[in-house]
Amino acid sequence: MQVWKDYLEQHKDRFLEELLAMLRIPSISARGEHKEDMKTCAIAVKDSLIAAGADKAVIYETAGHPIVYGEKIIDPSLPTILVYGHYDVQPADPLELWHSGPFEPVIKDGKIYARGACDDKGQFYMHVKALETMVKTNTLNTNVKFCIEGEEEIGSPNLATFVKEHKELLKADVILISDTAMISMEHPSIDIGVRGLSYIEVEVTGPNRDLHSGVYGGAVANPITILAKMIASCHDENNHITIPGFYDDVVESTPAEREKMAQAPYDENEFKADLGVSALWGEKGYTTNERTGIRPTLELNGIWGGYTGEGAKTVLPSKAYAKISARLVPNQSSTVITEKLLNYFKSIAPAGVTVKAEEHHGGEPYMTPIDSNAYKAAAEAIKATFGKDPIPVRGGGSIPICALFEKELGLKIVFMGFGLDSDNLHSPNEKYDIFNFYKGIETIPYFHKFFKLG
Amino acid sequence: MQVWKDYLEQHKDRFLEELLAMLRIPSISARGEHKEDMKTCAIAVKDSLIAAGADKAVIYETAGHPIVYGEKIIDPSLPTILVYGHYDVQPADPLELWHSGPFEPVIKDGKIYARGACDDKGQFYMHVKALETMVKTNTLNTNVKFCIEGEEEIGSPNLATFVKEHKELLKADVILISDTAMISMEHPSIDIGVRGLSYIEVEVTGPNRDLHSGVYGGAVANPITILAKMIASCHDENNHITIPGFYDDVVESTPAEREKMAQAPYDENEFKADLGVSALWGEKGYTTNERTGIRPTLELNGIWGGYTGEGAKTVLPSKAYAKISARLVPNQSSTVITEKLLNYFKSIAPAGVTVKAEEHHGGEPYMTPIDSNAYKAAAEAIKATFGKDPIPVRGGGSIPICALFEKELGLKIVFMGFGLDSDNLHSPNEKYDIFNFYKGIETIPYFHKFFKLG
Repeated sequence: MQVWKDYLEQHKDRFLEELLAMLRIPSISARGEHKEDMKTCAIAVKDSLIAAGADKAVIYETAGHPIVYGEKIIDPSLPTILVYGHYDVQPADPLELWHSGPFEPVIKDGKIYARGACDDKGQFYMHVKALETMVKTNTLNTNVKFCIEGEEEIGSPNLATFVKEHKELLKADVILISDTAMISMEHPSIDIGVRGLSYIEVEVTGPNRDLHSGVYGGAVANPITILAKMIASCHDENNHITIPGFYDDVVESTPAEREKMAQAPYDENEFKADLGVSALWGEKGYTTNERTGIRPTLELNGIWGGYTGEGAKTVLPSKAYAKISARLVPNQSSTVITEKLLNYFKSIAPAGVTVKAEEHHGGEPYMTPIDSNAYKAAAEAIKATFGKDPIPVRGGGSIPICALFEKELGLKIVFMGFGLDSDNLHSPNEKYDIFNFYKGIETIPYFHKFFKLG
Repeated sequence: MQVWKDYLEQHKDRFLEELLAMLRIPSISARGEHKEDMKTCAIAVKDSLIAAGADKAVIYETAGHPIVYGEKIIDPSLPTILVYGHYDVQPADPLELWHSGPFEPVIKDGKIYARGACDDKGQFYMHVKALETMVKTNTLNTNVKFCIEGEEEIGSPNLATFVKEHKELLKADVILISDTAMISMEHPSIDIGVRGLSYIEVEVTGPNRDLHSGVYGGAVANPITILAKMIASCHDENNHITIPGFYDDVVESTPAEREKMAQAPYDENEFKADLGVSALWGEKGYTTNERTGIRPTLELNGIWGGYTGEGAKTVLPSKAYAKISARLVPNQSSTVITEKLLNYFKSIAPAGVTVKAEEHHGGEPYMTPIDSNAYKAAAEAIKATFGKDPIPVRGGGSIPICALFEKELGLKIVFMGFGLDSDNLHSPNEKYDIFNFYKGIETIPYFHKFFKLG
């Protein structure tokens, strides 16, 4: 619609400036020292909703970081779209690998570099600006609700309680989320599923204190060596995961589904070149897209123990630690897999060490039906602005609250993500293309326009 | 000798105070930021030698930290004893595990708690105070030279050059070192060997940047997983080291030697209770004393990679690192083993990662003959103050410069260590019993008295 394009064109510099202001707030939910920044960011989100034309916007305190709710109800008989997003971001370290400050956004080659640029500030903010565009051009034809939380990156520990206690408030006809990626701007796509997550931390204790590796070396279990052996045992020579029962509940994709997936554009040489690797690595018998989409995985997210400073220290450490997470696919249960992971690490501990294994957080896998009115509206919206039909793809990431929303609110979710896999989510130099940011703001109103009940 | 006992009794409080002052200097050789502290400590050592009665004491600059040389020549025709020690200490971290500041020595239950209390400030300083005792009581009957370096804990990278360039200066009849331990005060012992050392650092690089573990997990090699597999492969199920050729040059101890070793006092339950472990771990077919004495070992000294902070971060890291060291026995060569270690880690790297492996430092194993005049003098000295014959034992630690001294100066080394294995060397809460400190000062003059040429 030309009015949307015109409005965007007139206000695009301000839209960008507003996003940059939001990106300057270091809203890292995982770190206690950012508690105040989280509050500051929640207020900024609330204010932005009011400024965009919401009737009301409220900050709900939780046991953790606050949730921002906002709404614009134009007619209760019209469809209501609930937009979910998150204003918290991942920690920024390792800081030394950033080319510019993670919370000092810079524009370079048409891209916004900052922590949260894509995940998820840049993406949820498209919905705020789309709302403004529709309100100011008198073209809004749905009710809109916003639920923007501050704990997505730590597993949304307090969202379930909030949702259960505010079912009426959150009542809607569909949930719309922009927190995923497209294959590319040339190959627009829609995620039809996200993987689940089980995240644990393992602590291995050998001797009760750090020891001299010469005096005691060879006579007592070294917790790093033992932890390494435990980790090494998690994948077999075909890179299948060996944890007992891990694949029990996996729904295998049919040959037809896999054939359809194989038609998505993918260039292995380009993929390898982008990552700077000479060879790929993964479960035997599956393609890259299958490995990151329809198969569960187990990844090491962190490891530490002993002396990690400059130079050499001949210590046999008392403790070693690892952070480990699994991505899950339908019909796996995060609770079940977390339990299996915890049990596995405890059960394989050899005599001479003690193992503590604890859950960080988890989330269930989620699939969205592609024959629903909501999916069709998203596909039409993308066709309207990209000029071609989007490809349905299975995403590798996790949005732990999807299963919760479905269960508590009885709603289906549609993912309209405008990021790219190369946006360095969770990594140094996270970015978001300005083009994509504007494209999202241009596309979202079409979803509102095309979405039909029933 | 009563005059020594009397002198020690009169001055023991001052001796202790002087040691505490030395311990307050954070002379950590591995850390660049302590360069000035190293200089301060070298000056303190030099001044202490002059104060103790040395004719001269000189600070020799090196490419790294300075070496302190001192001497007291009473008659060139008398035997000359060269005392070697080191004023540098290990890094103090993890700091949070210290009960008091590592460089704020405290006395508790008759023990001095501080980094370097035993290794090696407390021990080399016994020789300084023994010199003072002999000089002030007019009982010195040998020439004495001191070579106190500042880089022992980082592999003595500049000592070889110094020794080669100062052969005349260092000319002596025996080298005496107090940098080892006794079994206990009830079971005095003399180390007759120290293990060699090969210390390397391994860096595994997977993708060229940190990745989102959901988007890429399962499709690209995770450097932590790969590093863990590499480490796990270093020991087989019997805890033999699997690195090709690792044992090639090991001199196996004879059944007679092993039988003699087995007579040294050792209580497995006490050993386990002290370390807080329910079971021991080590190479099959060997006892604890053999594992730490006559057998080579491979220990992980540090590991790190990915997210190691509070909470959870779903990152697939670009890099993972490990610090790894082997202890060597006669007739292994540090150069050869280091090369084997570096090659091993490079050669087993799977496609999809790159491995950088570099040497930190090394040192050759060393054995001292027990039929020499020097060993006999040490044994007699210990008998004089402890009332019983010392037990000869094979030490697990490394003093990399022993082989160098023997080669360049043609001298044998005698180890008179007064520490205990439980002194927490290289660990938090390093300590040295005041009793042992004084006992050393009392015993050392007897060595000078008993040592004969020929």
